[in-house]
Amino acid sequence: MTNNSSKATALRTHTCGELNAANAGSTVTLCGWADSKRNHGGVLFINLRDLYGVTQVVAAPGSPVFAAAEETKSEYALRVTGKVTLRPGANANKNMPTGEIELEAAEITVLNASQPLPFDLGEHAGVSEETRLKYRYLDLRRPKMAKNLVLRSRLSQVIRNYLYGLDFNEVETPMLTRSTPEGARDFVVPSRSNPGEFYALPQSPQQFKQVLMMSGMDRYFQLARNFRDEELRSDRQPEHTQVDLEMSFVDEQDVARVVEGMMQAVFAHLGEEIAAPFPELEFSDVMLRFGSDKPDLRYALEIKECSDIFKASGFKVFSGALAEGGVVRAIKGEGAAAFSRGDMDKLTDLVKKLGAKGLVWLRFKDGKWDSPTLKFISDAEQAALKERLDVKEGDAVFIAADKPAVAAPCLGALRNELIARLKPAQLKKWAFLWVRHFPLLERDAESGAWTFTHNPFTAPLPEEAHKLDTDPGNVRSCQYDLVLNGVELGSGSVRNHNRAMQEKIFALMGYDKAAVQRRFGMIVSPMDFGAPPHGGIGIGYDRLIGIICGTDSIRDVIAFPKTTSGACLMSEAPSVIDDKQLKELHLKITD
Amino acid sequence: MTNNSSKATALRTHTCGELNAANAGSTVTLCGWADSKRNHGGVLFINLRDLYGVTQVVAAPGSPVFAAAEETKSEYALRVTGKVTLRPGANANKNMPTGEIELEAAEITVLNASQPLPFDLGEHAGVSEETRLKYRYLDLRRPKMAKNLVLRSRLSQVIRNYLYGLDFNEVETPMLTRSTPEGARDFVVPSRSNPGEFYALPQSPQQFKQVLMMSGMDRYFQLARNFRDEELRSDRQPEHTQVDLEMSFVDEQDVARVVEGMMQAVFAHLGEEIAAPFPELEFSDVMLRFGSDKPDLRYALEIKECSDIFKASGFKVFSGALAEGGVVRAIKGEGAAAFSRGDMDKLTDLVKKLGAKGLVWLRFKDGKWDSPTLKFISDAEQAALKERLDVKEGDAVFIAADKPAVAAPCLGALRNELIARLKPAQLKKWAFLWVRHFPLLERDAESGAWTFTHNPFTAPLPEEAHKLDTDPGNVRSCQYDLVLNGVELGSGSVRNHNRAMQEKIFALMGYDKAAVQRRFGMIVSPMDFGAPPHGGIGIGYDRLIGIICGTDSIRDVIAFPKTTSGACLMSEAPSVIDDKQLKELHLKITD
Repeated sequence: MTNNSSKATALRTHTCGELNAANAGSTVTLCGWADSKRNHGGVLFINLRDLYGVTQVVAAPGSPVFAAAEETKSEYALRVTGKVTLRPGANANKNMPTGEIELEAAEITVLNASQPLPFDLGEHAGVSEETRLKYRYLDLRRPKMAKNLVLRSRLSQVIRNYLYGLDFNEVETPMLTRSTPEGARDFVVPSRSNPGEFYALPQSPQQFKQVLMMSGMDRYFQLARNFRDEELRSDRQPEHTQVDLEMSFVDEQDVARVVEGMMQAVFAHLGEEIAAPFPELEFSDVMLRFGSDKPDLRYALEIKECSDIFKASGFKVFSGALAEGGVVRAIKGEGAAAFSRGDMDKLTDLVKKLGAKGLVWLRFKDGKWDSPTLKFISDAEQAALKERLDVKEGDAVFIAADKPAVAAPCLGALRNELIARLKPAQLKKWAFLWVRHFPLLERDAESGAWTFTHNPFTAPLPEEAHKLDTDPGNVRSCQYDLVLNGVELGSGSVRNHNRAMQEKIFALMGYDKAAVQRRFGMIVSPMDFGAPPHGGIGIGYDRLIGIICGTDSIRDVIAFPKTTSGACLMSEAPSVIDDKQLKELHLKITD
Repeated sequence: MTNNSSKATALRTHTCGELNAANAGSTVTLCGWADSKRNHGGVLFINLRDLYGVTQVVAAPGSPVFAAAEETKSEYALRVTGKVTLRPGANANKNMPTGEIELEAAEITVLNASQPLPFDLGEHAGVSEETRLKYRYLDLRRPKMAKNLVLRSRLSQVIRNYLYGLDFNEVETPMLTRSTPEGARDFVVPSRSNPGEFYALPQSPQQFKQVLMMSGMDRYFQLARNFRDEELRSDRQPEHTQVDLEMSFVDEQDVARVVEGMMQAVFAHLGEEIAAPFPELEFSDVMLRFGSDKPDLRYALEIKECSDIFKASGFKVFSGALAEGGVVRAIKGEGAAAFSRGDMDKLTDLVKKLGAKGLVWLRFKDGKWDSPTLKFISDAEQAALKERLDVKEGDAVFIAADKPAVAAPCLGALRNELIARLKPAQLKKWAFLWVRHFPLLERDAESGAWTFTHNPFTAPLPEEAHKLDTDPGNVRSCQYDLVLNGVELGSGSVRNHNRAMQEKIFALMGYDKAAVQRRFGMIVSPMDFGAPPHGGIGIGYDRLIGIICGTDSIRDVIAFPKTTSGACLMSEAPSVIDDKQLKELHLKITD
């Protein structure tokens, strides 16, 4: 019996994915699952599957293994010993790595039988996600799902090896931490030994990683589990994984170079070459040109400022907006002249939902403009518009006239919709982008008070910090987001390391020094003891793997995800706990 | 300015640990903390420290940097630019990697000042652990603590690379799981969207990793965070890290070989060669010979069965014990004849606390026995004892006569105490040991019902499974513990993969089939669908690193540990949460 596989064990000599013509003649033992079975002229063929592949097992009629082969049904766990034989030339399967050979079974042991399956593993398309999640152990046997998990695992090691190569250290930060009232809702954990008190599960290791920099750790990373008790969506889970890193004595560019190298390493593992440095755009610039802080730059579509064209417009929609300090901006859809009035109505509804009063559109067909509002637009304006947007036969132009804060997201949503409908050519397969210099502060929608846009610990741009006293809304920050194909993959910044500056920013948010000490003492106290300049980033690992695996749902790249109501259908979590445990925790459930 | 360090950033060209004579003459910029400062004939010398080392900075009187150097106090964060110069031969410090050079400061920027420190970083010995934990960011700047964290990080990567080399995949299992009433107390997390229901934080990924095997994942590992709401001790934390692994189609030996290779890789990183395979001892054997299931085999001391010697003894202590089915066993302390009566009283107290009625001891001094109970022991018995234990001048012998369940742990505790007091020669520096074949079941001390000894999912030894029907207390299991230097490092087993067998074992513990499905449905349901044979282990990573770093407290190898009352003195977790949050969770705090 040969025994030369690195994955040989007491029960097998090889896996189901590694035998080929070179093994012909040897006796081997495989373990795996009966993937399919067919009877061909009385001979039974079983496709035996494990994580590594599929090998065809043959049981001849009259052979001692025939009864066991006959008994075998889908997903039986089998152990098969036999001789590797070459398939006759015509029967060789070139599409299968083991397609040159088959295993002539001399012994078949049923390690475990299987009941009839709730769904056929090969025909999962029609299976509800609820069923897939309940029987996750079957769903994960599907090669596509197994491949996602293996890739997720391998890429985490690519990332770790890359960061270790730059002398980062992975430091595990606590899961049982302190609740902070900022940001999203915390999951809390009652403390039995401190009745009435709670730990919080971390929304991110943000504060601990900054403390690590203040502890002199220099370069930290962690593949960290984060928790947010929020309403779930397809790209949200109550717990998610983040590639979290922080560096001392750096500026924004240092962090960017590290992240770019990491992405190059990840994509190199997939055989894809990524150019670096990634493009960097100002926040104000991406909002103007793409109407989004996470534009999908695989596509060329760009919003054009047209306020100058319409500065003397007699069209009230334009002149009214401009008079109120608004803008007139337009985007072109190549080929969108084919859109019907119904399509145009839908696009109008889309921007109305985002706060626009309406949408002006013009189709360019048969060499001339066509629009219900064409009469309000002068010949000179039409000509200027055509030139500004380089309009060609069959195109359509969509115009938003509103305050910039409304026009930008409307045109951004329109841009995404045009991409979805028109499927323009991709400039590249993977479009990375840094969006930089977000405003440091914004007005809270409810209270009207200043609040942070991303992270209360982000530093202002040094050259604009002086405006904190006079014009805080116009202070740009050292905040940068990493965008890939229109998805916000990560968010980071250079942090405040000076206590006075951090206190000044918190003061704008309404926290006096005592409140800062009480709520954020862990992070401001070390600033009294030589905290170093530092910065970092957190990158959503589930999202990154989701994009790479080409799935719309991050549930397809997480082994045991929760439903949108936060339930695990397999383990039936959450569940009631017994009264004794509640009593020990000094808790009572209320209505 | 040279800029050739892999850790160069916008703020520094090199770290404080890498400059040597080869850099002499170049202009560099370092960042770090003022570790110490001294004035030598008007010249100021500052030792600038970062994670990587210390470099001596020189500020000459009258130089433009002198004022900044004078202002600098302990733990100021500095940025220093200057020329690397060779120290005059006599001044070179051979004990310091950068001792050949110093940095002639041309520019010193105070990046952040520091208040006076609550304790001197160099003199931490007298500092209370409470102070160290409150100011953890200062405690971690101590090179010894930083080194522990760096080693912890590096060894985790050694382990990962080793396991990836064997085609293991790291799969992240959920932190928000279902509470199971077995084992230690769970930390629970109230679910806002499912009022009255709770998630539990995992005590280990046990069930999920078994489900992964049933999902066909073949080889899984994870550096997993585990949670136990138990009373804390120096080697316990509410959250701890485990190197968790599981393999399909394996027996005990397959798992053992993987773990041995992992330990060899870890210790090879430390420059230590570890022999493998590790010794394997039966549970019954270690209890007999060492009185413990986690004996420290760095030392030769061994317990000897002496029941045969005393089978006709007239000494009631011995004859009484033997008549009741007990044993007489002895252990020798080399040189222990020097113990005083007071020492002997203390050792007697030790075994009494463990349930023994007393302790018989005999000193061998000046060529003859000396003991208060010598008169009850015949000459022949004395001679036999001397021979059995190879007693020499200056030794002492300690005898326990009791039921094996009492005698064994008493002699085990005595063995540890003799090692601590006598400091015998070490046979080896790192004594690994497998303890195997623990009993599958034992009687619960309170209820008298059968319960599992380690893990309810452990399989019985196949050849003894038939005794489950007739003599369940004597069924040995496929359970194995990994012991290093007297510390239980890990625990694993080959698991049940057959539902009928798992149900039979649960039935002995008092769970009928419906209860098994209700409580353990997640793990028994997949057994209906071709679950494969599988086994694995979980290894305590904090303990392993603690042993390697030579610390008694795992708090010294955890960045932000909790106190024994479960508090984080730095972040002040746990804490009260606001009423709004409690209300959203449908919870009320009771007295």
